[in-house]
Amino acid sequence: MPTILGQNQYGKAENRVVKITRDGDTHHIKDLNVSVALSGDMDDVHYSGSNANVLPTDTTKNTVYAFAKEYGIESAEQFGIHLARHFVSSQEPIHRARIRIEEYAWERIATSDGNSKFIGADEVKHSFVRKGQETRTTQITYDGEQWEVVSGLKDLTVMNSTNSEFWGYVKDRYTTLKEAYDRILATQVAAQWRYNWTSDEDRMPNWDKSYDQARKHMLEAFAETYSLSLQQTLYQMGSRIINSRSEIDEIRFSLPNKHHFLVDLEPFGLKNDNEVYFAADRPYGLIEATILRDGVEPKIPVDMTNL
Amino acid sequence: MPTILGQNQYGKAENRVVKITRDGDTHHIKDLNVSVALSGDMDDVHYSGSNANVLPTDTTKNTVYAFAKEYGIESAEQFGIHLARHFVSSQEPIHRARIRIEEYAWERIATSDGNSKFIGADEVKHSFVRKGQETRTTQITYDGEQWEVVSGLKDLTVMNSTNSEFWGYVKDRYTTLKEAYDRILATQVAAQWRYNWTSDEDRMPNWDKSYDQARKHMLEAFAETYSLSLQQTLYQMGSRIINSRSEIDEIRFSLPNKHHFLVDLEPFGLKNDNEVYFAADRPYGLIEATILRDGVEPKIPVDMTNL
Amino acid sequence: MPTILGQNQYGKAENRVVKITRDGDTHHIKDLNVSVALSGDMDDVHYSGSNANVLPTDTTKNTVYAFAKEYGIESAEQFGIHLARHFVSSQEPIHRARIRIEEYAWERIATSDGNSKFIGADEVKHSFVRKGQETRTTQITYDGEQWEVVSGLKDLTVMNSTNSEFWGYVKDRYTTLKEAYDRILATQVAAQWRYNWTSDEDRMPNWDKSYDQARKHMLEAFAETYSLSLQQTLYQMGSRIINSRSEIDEIRFSLPNKHHFLVDLEPFGLKNDNEVYFAADRPYGLIEATILRDGVEPKIPVDMTNL
Amino acid sequence: MPTILGQNQYGKAENRVVKITRDGDTHHIKDLNVSVALSGDMDDVHYSGSNANVLPTDTTKNTVYAFAKEYGIESAEQFGIHLARHFVSSQEPIHRARIRIEEYAWERIATSDGNSKFIGADEVKHSFVRKGQETRTTQITYDGEQWEVVSGLKDLTVMNSTNSEFWGYVKDRYTTLKEAYDRILATQVAAQWRYNWTSDEDRMPNWDKSYDQARKHMLEAFAETYSLSLQQTLYQMGSRIINSRSEIDEIRFSLPNKHHFLVDLEPFGLKNDNEVYFAADRPYGLIEATILRDGVEPKIPVDMTNL
Repeated sequence: MPTILGQNQYGKAENRVVKITRDGDTHHIKDLNVSVALSGDMDDVHYSGSNANVLPTDTTKNTVYAFAKEYGIESAEQFGIHLARHFVSSQEPIHRARIRIEEYAWERIATSDGNSKFIGADEVKHSFVRKGQETRTTQITYDGEQWEVVSGLKDLTVMNSTNSEFWGYVKDRYTTLKEAYDRILATQVAAQWRYNWTSDEDRMPNWDKSYDQARKHMLEAFAETYSLSLQQTLYQMGSRIINSRSEIDEIRFSLPNKHHFLVDLEPFGLKNDNEVYFAADRPYGLIEATILRDGVEPKIPVDMTNL
Repeated sequence: MPTILGQNQYGKAENRVVKITRDGDTHHIKDLNVSVALSGDMDDVHYSGSNANVLPTDTTKNTVYAFAKEYGIESAEQFGIHLARHFVSSQEPIHRARIRIEEYAWERIATSDGNSKFIGADEVKHSFVRKGQETRTTQITYDGEQWEVVSGLKDLTVMNSTNSEFWGYVKDRYTTLKEAYDRILATQVAAQWRYNWTSDEDRMPNWDKSYDQARKHMLEAFAETYSLSLQQTLYQMGSRIINSRSEIDEIRFSLPNKHHFLVDLEPFGLKNDNEVYFAADRPYGLIEATILRDGVEPKIPVDMTNL
Repeated sequence: MPTILGQNQYGKAENRVVKITRDGDTHHIKDLNVSVALSGDMDDVHYSGSNANVLPTDTTKNTVYAFAKEYGIESAEQFGIHLARHFVSSQEPIHRARIRIEEYAWERIATSDGNSKFIGADEVKHSFVRKGQETRTTQITYDGEQWEVVSGLKDLTVMNSTNSEFWGYVKDRYTTLKEAYDRILATQVAAQWRYNWTSDEDRMPNWDKSYDQARKHMLEAFAETYSLSLQQTLYQMGSRIINSRSEIDEIRFSLPNKHHFLVDLEPFGLKNDNEVYFAADRPYGLIEATILRDGVEPKIPVDMTNL
Repeated sequence: MPTILGQNQYGKAENRVVKITRDGDTHHIKDLNVSVALSGDMDDVHYSGSNANVLPTDTTKNTVYAFAKEYGIESAEQFGIHLARHFVSSQEPIHRARIRIEEYAWERIATSDGNSKFIGADEVKHSFVRKGQETRTTQITYDGEQWEVVSGLKDLTVMNSTNSEFWGYVKDRYTTLKEAYDRILATQVAAQWRYNWTSDEDRMPNWDKSYDQARKHMLEAFAETYSLSLQQTLYQMGSRIINSRSEIDEIRFSLPNKHHFLVDLEPFGLKNDNEVYFAADRPYGLIEATILRDGVEPKIPVDMTNL
């Protein structure tokens, strides 16, 4: 046979599951988008179309919904771990499962009563408004022995309106950019961090607390760094997380430089004293890097497809 | 000539302007997407290509940026009023200007210092994270005499996890839907409300306060209404605003019914006690209606193009 | 009651229906996205939540699929007419139905055999690739007596690389644009045209032929017009259709001016002889107008929401 | 230092360049979206913010536009090769360049004259309509010695309305899917293939011909394969390309199974004889695999970010 099959995987992508948990009149929401990718002994289905080893993608979808009932959704990470373990341990031909999850956050709607000290009405306890801002993400991979958990977020848009400069760069024949000593620095953060938890023998991180803390350190580093380049800010953001969270060993950022160009108002007889900007769409600078705990081997792929 | 020209308008759409205002070390952001549409004595440019009456769309763009400096951006509505007045009063062939604006909200990043009682660091004062949730919108129309201001929001996603029923409906040959006595009710609110301010002689509303209050009443009505149909909830949302805000006479809603279907877990030997839902994309119910102050003539078009 | 209900409508939006018709081994596809909006005697459901007059949106969905079987899909227009007539004539409280349809076109995949003169293989007869280019649209409205059919297209992107100028325009304090004597003219056509067929007594147009011809005239007018402004080109496009197709009385265009800016290569010692352009995203000029048969009353709304 | 820098890259993404070439009155368009990513000796800019080794992303943008003039755009691949070579050979700190390009295809508008045998008018020679269908992609990587060219396409939507089955699969506790003996098979092809050209010493492939042939073989294999699973079809598509094109050694597919579910019309007393389908959005099966020439080492990453 002149051609052969290489890496392959399959499963049901983007299963939208919403779980309501009722604590008396108080409801809690978990709102996930779950994608399953399985691989293993799948040569036959590619070569001959025999499905003898193929658990249908429809079954992987059903499993997501059934597990939301059977195990509940404590966190996106914990839910993905249940799913990955199940596929690898229950199906002999499946050697590896990768579960990717997006989570959408909700907050309660404050009603008049809900805000007062006399909390009489129960309306607020089951009424929610979807938080915008970032989408939380996670990817759980399991091969029957080792776990890899890479969590993160995307679409978190941040801006510093000062304390950013850009100068002292290389100038070649095609360079026309003017140096900037006070510019806007804005980006839409996509970050994925890898936990060093890999074995059922070891104690799992507190996934939700870890997420909250990683997000907090990232935002604080962005706000507090006096920036000479977006690369420097990126490194500070990653470094702050690695230094503060011992459960995280590696983090990958993809940071578009969302350019805000100072508008030339001189033709209209006006002075633009760092006040009026044009927010550009394309092109944009794109700064990507991995930050690692010293001595650790990098494992997050350079290009991670969006979930 | 067997064909003639009907209604027409032109201008620069989606001018992205960001304005930074510096109050000492404390910065403030206004982040707008401004679209200009002008009409008037424009037959010639259509019939013969003569641009003698045409102020270039490029000029309307420049005006947006220049006005951000000259007038500042107090609110989206106030900014649109400056622009609309300018085009109609400065250009004889232009008889009517319509300014549409989307506004993106930002909030400050809280840093360690910023959260403490010793606010020493100045980082927090110029660092922002973009709020997700809704996009605020406004449309200002001016014909040289009368103003029409239609403000609103879009993409505000809300959910009640109980207190919603749907039964007692018409059943015809094609009806298979089962009645529901406890369902999730979720929607992505698009709303536009019209202010009754129309004349420079009258006192303008406080646009920002009015927006905040309309949004608050809408959310509270959504949360507090025990719903027998999305139409009923819609009416309560609109009615609450009209009754609470004397400056608003009319409101139009477009509410997709974001279906959350209870998953049938019986094949897996599990009982789904209103816990596990599939969040569907398409198709979706779409409920649209106008709510008016009694005695008022409706003016908001049934189909308002998204900005 | 201080607030009242104004215009309202409801129904299931974006029902994705694919119909395969088998003519022996040769298959034919119709691929539609159908949105139903019904209105009538619907006060109660808004005021009190009584659904006694409400045919569920789920039923309107079922009807779309059942009618694909019962009537087939001869054309998007004919299919919408069947649906609109059904809702208005079968449900007493429903006084008006509006059916909006998007149609996605497919073409056959040419295989080796399919291309030869010996067409032996049957593979090609059931294999399709989706045409990109425009999406065909239609909107059918029926009130029990009169029909209104507004068909059109969107997302048809066209470009003239020469034969376009722009000069002789108004110059005010904010004008910096330089006159152009040879520029690229590009736009993404959105057009809706209204047929003058309104009554079951009259003979219906041939909807597919009419669509093909309207599209052809529009493209030819775009290509053949030496343009002094996009408005002039727009008028020629509409006028050509009105003059060529007696079944069409009115057409509304929304034409974004997709700016292609000549890049300044002088800093690099290069001359840009109308060769290298930057294709910009935002902002863009937006030119909108209605062209009418003389003596006809305009009925297409100025802002038509995208289907 | 407890944290260190791992893989990193930067550059200007999504430079939209349109090149018009004039061959007398006949114009030709190349319409590209070019993204530059550079890496090398970039520790300092991350650690300290020193830009001494940083060629600004703005300069990489300028280079794209200048090169469109200096070298023209023979093909996306050839253009990317010029760019990658330039960055690596002209800047000492840059050790590796990756150029990603999307190409949008255009075809000529046929006018009345253009279609006749008397081609008198010149309008048709500069008038274009954008082809929809797929977007052509390429990624060129250069480290100063070796080249890697991975080309492909995305968003090519195809459908077989018969000759597809799915049965004989694994059934576990969560399996409810019914076997199918005649189903629709539809997918939106994303494919990337790697050329075995790696050295300036060797003769380059004819990039355009190679693209056309790879696309043709892929479509023919899709149409001609009687499918027992999407995996089998995928393998045939890849295998056909590897076997037919000696310049291509490896191909990676990502094929969403765009489900078309047969609608149950029995509640309405109708029989659905494989005629009426619901085209679903989410979830969808996702089938991904690499096909290789035997003996070749795979190099295309399992997850390739969309360009």
